[in-house]
Amino acid sequence: MLDGQRRKLNAVTELIRDLQTLSRFGADGDDGGISRLAWSPPLLEASGWLVQQVRALGLDADLDAAGNVVAVWAADGGDALVVGSHLDTVPNGGRFDGALGVIAGLAALRQLRGSGFQPKRPIWLVSFMDEEGARFSTPMFGSRAFVGEDLQHLGTRTDGDGTRLADAMSAAGFSLEALSSARAIDRVHGYLELHIEQGPVLEAQDTDVGVVTHIAGSADLQVVVTGEAGHAGTTPMGARRDALVGASRMITLICQAAAEDGDVRATVGTIAVSPGASNVIPARAEFTVDVRATEDAAIDRFSARLSALIADIAREEGLEASLDEAARLAPLALDGDLQGALVAAAREAGASFTSMPSGAAHDAMVIGRHVPAGMLFVPSRGGISHNPAEYTSADDAVRGAEVLTRAIAQLAS
Amino acid sequence: MLDGQRRKLNAVTELIRDLQTLSRFGADGDDGGISRLAWSPPLLEASGWLVQQVRALGLDADLDAAGNVVAVWAADGGDALVVGSHLDTVPNGGRFDGALGVIAGLAALRQLRGSGFQPKRPIWLVSFMDEEGARFSTPMFGSRAFVGEDLQHLGTRTDGDGTRLADAMSAAGFSLEALSSARAIDRVHGYLELHIEQGPVLEAQDTDVGVVTHIAGSADLQVVVTGEAGHAGTTPMGARRDALVGASRMITLICQAAAEDGDVRATVGTIAVSPGASNVIPARAEFTVDVRATEDAAIDRFSARLSALIADIAREEGLEASLDEAARLAPLALDGDLQGALVAAAREAGASFTSMPSGAAHDAMVIGRHVPAGMLFVPSRGGISHNPAEYTSADDAVRGAEVLTRAIAQLAS
Repeated sequence: MLDGQRRKLNAVTELIRDLQTLSRFGADGDDGGISRLAWSPPLLEASGWLVQQVRALGLDADLDAAGNVVAVWAADGGDALVVGSHLDTVPNGGRFDGALGVIAGLAALRQLRGSGFQPKRPIWLVSFMDEEGARFSTPMFGSRAFVGEDLQHLGTRTDGDGTRLADAMSAAGFSLEALSSARAIDRVHGYLELHIEQGPVLEAQDTDVGVVTHIAGSADLQVVVTGEAGHAGTTPMGARRDALVGASRMITLICQAAAEDGDVRATVGTIAVSPGASNVIPARAEFTVDVRATEDAAIDRFSARLSALIADIAREEGLEASLDEAARLAPLALDGDLQGALVAAAREAGASFTSMPSGAAHDAMVIGRHVPAGMLFVPSRGGISHNPAEYTSADDAVRGAEVLTRAIAQLAS
Repeated sequence: MLDGQRRKLNAVTELIRDLQTLSRFGADGDDGGISRLAWSPPLLEASGWLVQQVRALGLDADLDAAGNVVAVWAADGGDALVVGSHLDTVPNGGRFDGALGVIAGLAALRQLRGSGFQPKRPIWLVSFMDEEGARFSTPMFGSRAFVGEDLQHLGTRTDGDGTRLADAMSAAGFSLEALSSARAIDRVHGYLELHIEQGPVLEAQDTDVGVVTHIAGSADLQVVVTGEAGHAGTTPMGARRDALVGASRMITLICQAAAEDGDVRATVGTIAVSPGASNVIPARAEFTVDVRATEDAAIDRFSARLSALIADIAREEGLEASLDEAARLAPLALDGDLQGALVAAAREAGASFTSMPSGAAHDAMVIGRHVPAGMLFVPSRGGISHNPAEYTSADDAVRGAEVLTRAIAQLAS
């Protein structure tokens, strides 16, 4: 497929240059962080830049009604192979999460166009709007519109400044009413996504790429513990119903239980107590539990254990406690044939590889419920993500792009 | 001292009426809560009302340079017996904390004036400005000015709206520059304060009044636990350095240790984690520990235990932890003679009594470092305070006022 070392060197240079260019859209300043939130000018500018890059290869590209960038390499021969990821970021996020998958897809198109490749089915490169959902709590907005989900009810969601999603879309030149026209899944044959691992496994194993087997499902749980406020100085230790003491025991045991379980990951990422004064015994503590596993049964089993554990501690401490499941996302098994194609491509490219689950959700989780989907991970230094320190080496990025390119070439032949 | 049942009935009626009148200044609405913050119009109106009540008894009364209401029953015979408490409240506080002590002092003056009592030394009734310190974190501002502390450096403190203390004072017609003229401690012989217990002990023991032996000292500790942020889905349980898991273990053990210790009370009333997203492992957890005891040695011993416990857990969890003492208040032993006078007064009044420490700080803690001080507690229903549900029955309030009146009469004879 490659006709020489010179072309390969150019491809490397171009990929690195593209990543650098992209990191200027929404740059936060000196810390290397990037903020390209849904429907914001920096994200729209980055999307416009991508459109220009694809058009420079002689391909059609434009934004659809959901703000997704859709680039089309037309061909006879039926439904499209879609290569995708996203250009939006969390606030003060990194340069690689999402962006590297889009840039690797662009590099693949560039390399295949340059080599005279003739696809036997259409190839689309898609950059999905708002995968992160950081602004309006609407994760995977673009891919959900792409598969035809009705998202009208999300229009009233507001961001931290009180701006409604519907108004943010209008300001960017889009409308909720036109959203249904973004549905394109019926013309799609399969989906491939390259993404940074966002975890420490590939680096720790010194492995070039990961072929993803499952995307973990998740349950977002809310625990509310209720006791009684009291004066820190005047209430004897034995007469207290301290909601934070109960919550602390719960959090300790929840995380121990997840470590013992082996099949789940559990994280308490937020906690709030009220009244919230240093000299007042907390009457109420509220915390979230993020539970993930690659099997629904594991999430169910762990949630049941967690529920019993919370009830036991509440009883022991004289507290009330409630547990609510705020959201649930089913795990997704990725397509076996596409995993095979990615393994074959890794072998061809001389890349070491391993099979692994994805603990994080991705657009592939939405698309993969409708058509076969495959995902390829590249290493994240220190497992760090959603952070200016997020980093994937140029070698790892280029090797991943090469595996992706070979898989695309095989699947579109 | 009382010349009949009719006068006693009037005194009861007047005390209850005064409490009701006072509860209209700064009333929050339907929940019964009260907000009379330092230097605010509702507090100044309540103070003005108190001035009028005292003047109606034929006594001098005015606000001093610190916003304290100072009422004077002049007499030859040296330094004054000061009866005091405060009219300010926490936000959405109760009707009794502070206010009952002032009203009981007013009831005592009224009863003694009505009975033809002739004091052998001056009696002052003082309502101190800003005992709670809820607005500018300047607790016991008025009593600190009264004893001559230099408080100029507090002028730049800001409230939740960004208003500086110096500007809030100006708006209320006061000035930081004139504050030193509030110093009056040199003309004071002794101090008495009636206050609600703010704890459950008297109610649980079915006892009418508490004669306070010590006011507990306190250490305000700040603990910061530092780990590493990570993605909730992608970071294996065994590869985590979760600051909240460490903090939860610490909080659980700190409160257990305080219960075992017996001599201290320890409360974790605030906690904050960052980044603070449900799907991100907390990199940092910060919490306060309020430690109280009636002996400095007990606070020192417990702080040392706490420091070791935090270091152990941090090491076990691969975290860093720091412990800082943000503030320290030494315990105060109340005056033995004044305790004796209060006990004698309780016996005369037929009130059951017990000796007990105060876990909460009071203006008596400031005044009592300069002159002999005594404190009398009345029951708090359910031990509840700093809350609209704060309640002391009319019987308990009147009985407390009668004990106070008898003690004043004895000490000023």
